[in-house]
Amino acid sequence: MSFVDMLLRAEARHRSRLCVGLDPDPARLPGRWRGRVEHLYDFCAAIVDATADLVCAYKPQIAYFAAHGAEAQLERLMAHIRVVAPEVPIILDAKRGDIGSTAEQYAKEAFERYGADAVTLSPFMGFDSVEPYLRYPGKGVFLLCRTSNPGGDDLQAQRLADVPGQPRLYEHIAALAQGPWNRHGQMGLVVGATYPQEIERVRAIAPTVPLLIPGVGAQGGDAATTVRAGWRGDAAGHTTGPVIVNSSRAILYASTGDDFATAARAEAERTRAALWV
Amino acid sequence: MSFVDMLLRAEARHRSRLCVGLDPDPARLPGRWRGRVEHLYDFCAAIVDATADLVCAYKPQIAYFAAHGAEAQLERLMAHIRVVAPEVPIILDAKRGDIGSTAEQYAKEAFERYGADAVTLSPFMGFDSVEPYLRYPGKGVFLLCRTSNPGGDDLQAQRLADVPGQPRLYEHIAALAQGPWNRHGQMGLVVGATYPQEIERVRAIAPTVPLLIPGVGAQGGDAATTVRAGWRGDAAGHTTGPVIVNSSRAILYASTGDDFATAARAEAERTRAALWV
Repeated sequence: MSFVDMLLRAEARHRSRLCVGLDPDPARLPGRWRGRVEHLYDFCAAIVDATADLVCAYKPQIAYFAAHGAEAQLERLMAHIRVVAPEVPIILDAKRGDIGSTAEQYAKEAFERYGADAVTLSPFMGFDSVEPYLRYPGKGVFLLCRTSNPGGDDLQAQRLADVPGQPRLYEHIAALAQGPWNRHGQMGLVVGATYPQEIERVRAIAPTVPLLIPGVGAQGGDAATTVRAGWRGDAAGHTTGPVIVNSSRAILYASTGDDFATAARAEAERTRAALWV
Repeated sequence: MSFVDMLLRAEARHRSRLCVGLDPDPARLPGRWRGRVEHLYDFCAAIVDATADLVCAYKPQIAYFAAHGAEAQLERLMAHIRVVAPEVPIILDAKRGDIGSTAEQYAKEAFERYGADAVTLSPFMGFDSVEPYLRYPGKGVFLLCRTSNPGGDDLQAQRLADVPGQPRLYEHIAALAQGPWNRHGQMGLVVGATYPQEIERVRAIAPTVPLLIPGVGAQGGDAATTVRAGWRGDAAGHTTGPVIVNSSRAILYASTGDDFATAARAEAERTRAALWV
């Protein structure tokens, strides 16, 4: 089953647009696990166990494992999600961006070693830095498009002089993802939740691709506004592509005590409800 | 000692602008190691042993290790370079690009876990995706600026409508790296060797930063032309920032037989001489 089919089924079955980001910071682990790198897996697995019926996707962030030499724990976590939530697609947040044979190695890392269903990528090096990932049938690729950090403006908001209409760089990327780069419907976009009007703009340019929207929860974006900006249905039943809204810290660290998993579930339920507009 | 000081000393001592890229593809390992992932370290270590007095830097590419779960071999390789060539700086080719706490994790991976002296980064997410790396005193950061792959044009060659002079995106990045982003002299740029006039353009905009130039050797750029485009000295002894020219495959795979290390040394000597113009 393709990534998009998995995503749509998980969304419908769990009535959820919530993606839980698995970004385990050793310094923020609960109780007696605090600061202990060997418990990254235990922590994330407990979060998965507590939220598996509430999400449309999981998004592990590879940096939190790589910084501590904990790749084996990430491998175990991927396998655990497959057992506990076999119907939920996994987006590996890696933001890779390289070319040719190196991109092939990173694609192998994401899809073969870790078995992810989709991966986040940077579009900076152009189409041939994305194409090696598209050779994996059914796998999804989320291109960075508009990020909500303060520095996101530095390059992404620049208007392009020689493209008709002088779109901003992020609008140009959205058009590439909807059109020429979107072989076999594998393409998605990452769009930050801080500016709903920018999500609307991306959705207008790229009506059918999945949007992955971080920035709700700890980063402050409003849930319902975010979804309404990224998703539209009409009376005839036509809808835009799916919207996946990521929350990481607000759920992972809902409690710092032994009740962290219960608190994470409660926070995930609240966020899921707020997103189901 | 800072990355730039290490680089200048290694360049002077070895009379070399050659950086050897360590991108070990299991399918191209020599002789009885072919296809055997457990020999990535052995292969790279032999290349280092054969070339340690000929280079100004080494550049391991993390993807080739990560694809095969061989991070421990990369850790061993970093330690081996420190023993065999303690005066040679190591640039970890990772092309990371993420923000805030995630960027901190990737910086920890590059500088603490692997002990690199510098790292390659994507500028796509803006200054706050670069800043966490600059908090490590003396460490270097090479921003992707102009890449020589066919898709490099897709975004990097776009002219920016609202920046004075309407520079291309890569020229804008060069100006950021020379100026506002260059705290404490830690910034460098990655510029492909395919178009010498673009190297000249980057050098004119960013006269003092180190340029890391891949694309000589297997990728086809001419060595002497590349160096002349990126480096200038005048009669008064003023010079531009250093030029580091990377070659990977032409050296690593100079022979597929048991003489691979001898052949790699001979190819490195040829390239080093061609670059010392």
